[in-house]
Parts: sequence; C-alpha cells; structure tokens
Amino acid sequence: MSDTAPAPVLFRMPVALRWRDLDAFNHVNNSNFLTYLEEARIRWFASWRGEWVTETTAPLLASVQLNYRRPIPYPADVAVELFAERLGNTSITIGHRIVSGDGAAALYADGHVVMVWIDRASGRPVPLPDVVREACQPQG
Amino acid sequence: MSDTAPAPVLFRMPVALRWRDLDAFNHVNNSNFLTYLEEARIRWFASWRGEWVTETTAPLLASVQLNYRRPIPYPADVAVELFAERLGNTSITIGHRIVSGDGAAALYADGHVVMVWIDRASGRPVPLPDVVREACQPQG
Amino acid sequence: MSDTAPAPVLFRMPVALRWRDLDAFNHVNNSNFLTYLEEARIRWFASWRGEWVTETTAPLLASVQLNYRRPIPYPADVAVELFAERLGNTSITIGHRIVSGDGAAALYADGHVVMVWIDRASGRPVPLPDVVREACQPQG
Amino acid sequence: MSDTAPAPVLFRMPVALRWRDLDAFNHVNNSNFLTYLEEARIRWFASWRGEWVTETTAPLLASVQLNYRRPIPYPADVAVELFAERLGNTSITIGHRIVSGDGAAALYADGHVVMVWIDRASGRPVPLPDVVREACQPQG
Repeated sequence: MSDTAPAPVLFRMPVALRWRDLDAFNHVNNSNFLTYLEEARIRWFASWRGEWVTETTAPLLASVQLNYRRPIPYPADVAVELFAERLGNTSITIGHRIVSGDGAAALYADGHVVMVWIDRASGRPVPLPDVVREACQPQG
Repeated sequence: MSDTAPAPVLFRMPVALRWRDLDAFNHVNNSNFLTYLEEARIRWFASWRGEWVTETTAPLLASVQLNYRRPIPYPADVAVELFAERLGNTSITIGHRIVSGDGAAALYADGHVVMVWIDRASGRPVPLPDVVREACQPQG
Repeated sequence: MSDTAPAPVLFRMPVALRWRDLDAFNHVNNSNFLTYLEEARIRWFASWRGEWVTETTAPLLASVQLNYRRPIPYPADVAVELFAERLGNTSITIGHRIVSGDGAAALYADGHVVMVWIDRASGRPVPLPDVVREACQPQG
Repeated sequence: MSDTAPAPVLFRMPVALRWRDLDAFNHVNNSNFLTYLEEARIRWFASWRGEWVTETTAPLLASVQLNYRRPIPYPADVAVELFAERLGNTSITIGHRIVSGDGAAALYADGHVVMVWIDRASGRPVPLPDVVREACQPQG
C-alpha cells in the first residue's frame, strides 16, 4: 500500500457474464459493473475467517468511483480483482479492477469503493473489525 | 458553473421506484442508483432540440462517481437532478443528485459522470456537438 | 368471472419503462415483463383495505403463464391490467395483460399467475384472507 | 418424447447465482428464474453446429410457463436443464427445470417455453431450421 508499488490483489473472482447484462448498445450495461464488483466483495467477505456482519455491526457502501476503460462484450472471459487502497479507523477503501480473465491483458474498468463499518442500532461508524484488518494483510 | 454558486438544475426526473430495485437488505441496491441516473440522462438527451446520437458521433460513459448519502426505501418519492459541472472540448461532466421528490429535503446520493463524445468509426473523441453546449445553457 | 364475459379489470398500473429494460435485441427483455407484473400486484395489494402480509400469513407465487404477443419498444406508453380469473380456497389465479396505455389498442402480453396464501411458520396453504376476497369483488 | 418416458436432458448449465438476484424476501426473485432459463437457452443455441440466427431467420419467445416449486437461497448450487417437449413445424416447446446442482435432489422450478422461428423481414413463422431439429436428437 505504498505510493510506489501496486497494492497486491487480495481477492479475484471470475465473472459469469449473462446475456441479460447487455443493454441495447450490445455491451454490458454500466450498472452491471457495480453488480460484478458487489458480488466479488460479498464473496471476499464470505471467505474471511470471522463474521463480517454481526448482530451489532455491518458494512455500508459510502461511495463508488469507476472508470469505464473499454466496453465488455458477451461472451467474454472476465474477472474482478480487489485490493486494499487504504485502511482507516472506521472505513476501508477497496480498489477494484475488471480485467480480462486470460492474463489481464485487457483492463475493462478500475476505481474504488469506500465502505464504512457502522453500529446497526445507531447508524454511527465503528472501528473496523479485526477480521477486516486481517483480511487486508497481504499473504506472505 | 462558478465555484461559489451551485450549478442550476438542467433536468429533473421523478423516479418510479420498483419493488424489484430493493435487494436483500430491503433498500434500493447500489447498482440501481446508476440505472436511475442513466434513465435521467437519456430523457434529458431526448429532450434536446437536436440529435444526441448521429450516424457519426455518440456519447460514451467514461467514469462515474457516486456518494451514497442515505438508503432509499420502497415506496418513496424520489427524483434525479442533473446539472453541468464542467464543459470541456470533447467531454462533459454531468453532476447528479438523487433527492426526495417532495422538496429535496433528503439527499440520497450525489456525484457526477464524465461523458465523452466520440467518432463512432474511430472511437476517438470529437468536439462536443453544439446541441450539448446549448442544452447546458441555464435558461434565463 | 363467467365463461362468457371478460373478467372486469380490478387494477390498472401505468408502467414507467426504463431504457435498461431493453436487451441487446432493442426490445424489453422477457424477464422484465415479470417485473412489471410483480410491481402491479404489489401496488394492488398495497391498495387493499387490510394487510396482505401479516405476522402469520403471506402470499407465495406458485406459477406464471405468459404469452408474449408483441415486442415492447422504448419509449412506449404501457400499462398492466389485473383481474381475478379464479378464487380457490387457498389460492387465487390473477389474470394479467400488458397493454398500450393509450386505449389498449395493442396487446403486448397476457396470461396469469397463481398465488397461494401460506402460513409463514409451516409453509402450508391457508384459506385466502377475507381482504383478498373483498379485493376481487367487482365494484358496482 | 413419448408420454411414458421423461425427455432426455439436451443441455445442462450450472448457474452462477448473484447476491443481486435476491429480492427483499431474501430469495431469488421470480423474474431472475427467466434470466437463468434464457442464459441456458442461449448457451445451448451457441453450442449447435450451425447458426441459430441468420440474416433471414431468428427465434422468438412466444410464451413461458413456470412452476415455482421452492425458493432459491443464496448461495446455492443450482443448474438449468433443458429438453425438447415438442417439435412442431415452425415452433419448438423447450421443457426446463431448475434443480440443485449436486444430483438434482431438489427441484426449484419446472415448465416450458415455446419458441417460434420467424422470417426477420416479414415476421412470419418459418419451418424450423435443420440445426434446431438436429440439436433435439438425443445422442445415442
């Protein structure tokens, strides 16, 4: 997470495109990019050793930034890559890339989301659970 | 479009929410926010005096930035507001807000998209069509 | 509800089409027809005098039959019409039509769904709530 | 395709469920069942030896019938099975089942669609292309 080296990919998910993801321009619709990213985050969270949603705390999507680099056709071999751009006290900035699944030669989209962990009763931000910080440690 | 005054709203569209827009958290899914914004842009474009897509040129969504300010329930009275944040040579930055339809007391989301007009054959950016510049003139 | 006269329309909902409802064939996708019908049913249920979901009972979609009569373009003026085809002990057959909103000259689709009211704890069918039977009485 | 033996499965597709397929009832929404079936048909068609869409002819979805047998949770191991229920002169009735992917112990849904092959210029039905009839021959 330094400024000089790219952040290591923490999770990678192949996307099973659906023909329905296309819109009338015959490319994957811009909103479906968010669905792919959401699916990757949920599967990443589900892969953690501890619970990412508890009785008292849950993550909230605070913002998204996405650059559409090139249109995604159907069919296509596509994958999502997630990495940690920044770990704050109560929030995490998750970098994301949508790439071609066969070696990442093509970059379809990149950007990031900010997720905040909140107290479910009050809606107030809470310190990031340990399970989040552990999941963001690059594996040696 | 100065730094000190808010940009005037150029287009406003009430959103007909659908129950299907909800996800398992019982709020409108984050991807549907993009669908609402897309629908508003398309209706805005369709309201222009000239063609926004021609045989030779078309707009392309280059990037999106969106802040999720509060969850949207169903049913709810919701509207999208669009305004011009920046007019470049070949691109336009369209500011957007998703607000409550009954006086804008509640802000659900805000942010912007960048759209680039391209030559459909070459894929290269072209100067913004006059119809775009005209549409961004606040009406006196 | 006799065999010789058409069932009276019990609920009518204009559909706010979205450009995103189109698929790569430039027509409303077949799955979105179900979303329009679902939205109409939910709004019809919400218009009843009593609760259609309670602590103990809820409706379940048991089956759908739909004839695609002609493709729906965008934009278009479209409405859903619902009527009661059959009232059983524990289920109701709701007839539906998707028509043009300007006088029903065009029929886009027709068919029906069967909905069963169930006990939420056991999952077993229960007698149709009175509120359902009342909602199906044609207004004189 | 006799009345006494079940039709052989002609195509089987595992479904990559998405969390977004859930609705506010926390089950896969009824409209997404159609998207799964559509995806399976398109991949089946794409697996044929010849073209299923040509310059002059294309298939059209004429009707769908679907029985919702049990709700689909997320995550789940799910597959679509397609078989030929009836081959007509200009149409085919494709039977479908949505089953659990791990041995078909659970049946989530079943039913069929009718697809008609049409002349793209006139919109009139045409005799089923040979490639369709060949694809429906059970492999010995």
